Amino acid sequence: MKTSSKHVVILGGGFAGLSAARKLDHDAIQVTLVDKQNHHLFQPLLYQVATAGLAAPDIAQPLRHIFSKQQNVTTLMDEVVSIDPSSKQVILRKSSLNYDYLIIALGARTGYFGNDHWAQNAQGLKTLDEATQLRRRLLLCFEEAETTQDRANWNRLLSFVIIGGGPTGVEMAGALAELARRVLADDFRKIDPSSAHVHLVEAGPRLLPMFSERQSEYTRLRLEKMGVTVHLNAPVSDLNPKEVMVGNLRIEASIILWAAGVEGNPVVRALPEVPFDRGGRIQVKPDLSLPGSPNVFVAGDLVSLTDPKGVRVPGVAPAATQMGRHAAHQIFTDIKGKKTKPFVYINKGNMATIGRSSAVASIAGWHSCGWSAWVMWLSIHLFFLIGLRNRVMVLVHWIWSYITWQRGARIITGTENLARPSESSPKQRKS
Amino acid sequence: MKTSSKHVVILGGGFAGLSAARKLDHDAIQVTLVDKQNHHLFQPLLYQVATAGLAAPDIAQPLRHIFSKQQNVTTLMDEVVSIDPSSKQVILRKSSLNYDYLIIALGARTGYFGNDHWAQNAQGLKTLDEATQLRRRLLLCFEEAETTQDRANWNRLLSFVIIGGGPTGVEMAGALAELARRVLADDFRKIDPSSAHVHLVEAGPRLLPMFSERQSEYTRLRLEKMGVTVHLNAPVSDLNPKEVMVGNLRIEASIILWAAGVEGNPVVRALPEVPFDRGGRIQVKPDLSLPGSPNVFVAGDLVSLTDPKGVRVPGVAPAATQMGRHAAHQIFTDIKGKKTKPFVYINKGNMATIGRSSAVASIAGWHSCGWSAWVMWLSIHLFFLIGLRNRVMVLVHWIWSYITWQRGARIITGTENLARPSESSPKQRKS
Repeated sequence: MKTSSKHVVILGGGFAGLSAARKLDHDAIQVTLVDKQNHHLFQPLLYQVATAGLAAPDIAQPLRHIFSKQQNVTTLMDEVVSIDPSSKQVILRKSSLNYDYLIIALGARTGYFGNDHWAQNAQGLKTLDEATQLRRRLLLCFEEAETTQDRANWNRLLSFVIIGGGPTGVEMAGALAELARRVLADDFRKIDPSSAHVHLVEAGPRLLPMFSERQSEYTRLRLEKMGVTVHLNAPVSDLNPKEVMVGNLRIEASIILWAAGVEGNPVVRALPEVPFDRGGRIQVKPDLSLPGSPNVFVAGDLVSLTDPKGVRVPGVAPAATQMGRHAAHQIFTDIKGKKTKPFVYINKGNMATIGRSSAVASIAGWHSCGWSAWVMWLSIHLFFLIGLRNRVMVLVHWIWSYITWQRGARIITGTENLARPSESSPKQRKS
Repeated sequence: MKTSSKHVVILGGGFAGLSAARKLDHDAIQVTLVDKQNHHLFQPLLYQVATAGLAAPDIAQPLRHIFSKQQNVTTLMDEVVSIDPSSKQVILRKSSLNYDYLIIALGARTGYFGNDHWAQNAQGLKTLDEATQLRRRLLLCFEEAETTQDRANWNRLLSFVIIGGGPTGVEMAGALAELARRVLADDFRKIDPSSAHVHLVEAGPRLLPMFSERQSEYTRLRLEKMGVTVHLNAPVSDLNPKEVMVGNLRIEASIILWAAGVEGNPVVRALPEVPFDRGGRIQVKPDLSLPGSPNVFVAGDLVSLTDPKGVRVPGVAPAATQMGRHAAHQIFTDIKGKKTKPFVYINKGNMATIGRSSAVASIAGWHSCGWSAWVMWLSIHLFFLIGLRNRVMVLVHWIWSYITWQRGARIITGTENLARPSESSPKQRKS
């Protein structure tokens, strides 16, 4: 390795950015990690924050604390404005950075397949703020139903529609049904929370298409048993604040949740001569480098790639982690003057939870439904959560919920108009 | 007791409202508990949420869950607009309630002694939203200092002024000094968080005037050892977003926290012919009833009273709890046709924490400083926290922090402009 220190800039502190920065732990490398949040977010458990099972800090860890001991990493809380591969520069909102190597790991955001105006009425679930906002809205629906004088309004206030039958949609539908039917059941005097309607709407013929047909069917039956109305072969034709249209069917809703798709972070769209797929993801070269820029790599949900084995790399956390590590490794390889290698995705399995004691898992040809899959889901998520404290906290939360059927974060926050306006905080003062 | 059911309305779900509702557990009584939040908040630990030690849900419990089993209590999440004792009616934002008996336990808000314009620049700390906002502002100051190009700006960005040397001010100053000097110390690359300045400004001659002089002096010395600059005999003459004026001294500040006083909830000010003290508190009759309205009682921080033993009832949680119970008891007494009794405050002691392993406590003539007082502070706060789950969570947080010097809630939230505007939530939709 050359003795002159190389500067690697990593954009994004998700699974891909984190694994890349960890892998780049070497004296000859200076790493700058940029994220607009101050924390790494464990997205797979976000739905539990939205449904009052976990507190927001339980699934997040400050990025600069994660790298407290790794002295070659500098963390910056800033937002990416643009990337210029020709001058090897990244423009941030508050400064700019020159790099020798760049790893773009900016992830995906909720995508509406061209119906961007639906975003106003169908909330996505990608950030902690979205999760606590959804928690507030959900709990307020029940409070509103309890206080309203207009009983005809109850039905709509307690109707929730989730669009998208992938893991996020299934997990949200299950968690919401449990919230209404078990957690809140005894706490109201005028309404019966268990009369709430949870609809799960999927355009395709089955839920969880990445699993076996038997597992999809198990999932549907479990959800229906929990009180969820599952609509299959039901593409959404339109929606407004009060209803979702599926063909001739109008489904009343007070909250519409969009779990049907994501698209690549739009910051990269201005990159010159870069091919994108329909979801706004970058069609990278086999080694994950940006076409035309061998010193720029892309990792995580922003990647569109079919690997040498013909496997389409999915937008899931394990793939992002593997890509981050691979990109870091290619930087070492390139510094040594060797030829980079193509990325090969290792599928360690899929799992999705449905509700209490019930999940599906497909690992190394082993297809499982029910309690064993659920315990495996819990163990694996606990294991991969960043930070020992968070693991302990989440474990205590889960044990508590399992024993009592209660959820610990049923508080409504963010409804106040605070006396002191937020524009006086230092971040805003500058702009 | 008469057989016809009486309707008791309780306004406010703080310590006073909660203890009153619990005491009123009787078949012949219907209770309606009204609070604008959905949760009871354990205010004594609010400063730990503001300084990233605890997550917001750890110190709050949904009111309707607390009364889930007590069937005679109905909880309403609504805001009090006005109270009309002559027609025995309370007007809420979304409905109105008729009562046989009323308990007003609406508490206090941050008070600026006539300088209400200071509220814009000197934040108070009374609600969860204020605590998470303060956490965000504090953490953003350090992030901003790390990214700023203007090194001259560092000094101001890392200067924090706390006004008021009572328990809240002392606790905040200690927690902030520990945050900067220990928790964040190793996590930044450009700035040294331990160079942050924490100023505690007190108008009177000593900190914690409700304690012994020896304890006040111990507190000052401990805080100074932790790096806090303590200003005594230092009444604030003016303040603006960037500095606090104390006589001729100008103290630079990025955040100014107001812990110098409270005033009664202003909703009650329109009550006819009711005497108030200078702090906007109601000068109640000895039995806690509202002058002129024997079926209306006041309890908690809204009360201005010197009890029959000549003791001025303080605005602290134990006094609020005792008053709530007393008010409930007087309602039983009145229903039975008996004469109500005056409220006598039982002072079980005072305690305030300064920092790790250091607190002051005065209990039954026993004045203690240091580790023993700190352990007692921890135990008592844990004991009085509502909800076994919250106790377990807070205990795990504390043990974790004690061992690692870390804090588990160092995340910045609430900075996003969410795609879906909050006015579409059901609460706002109605207005």
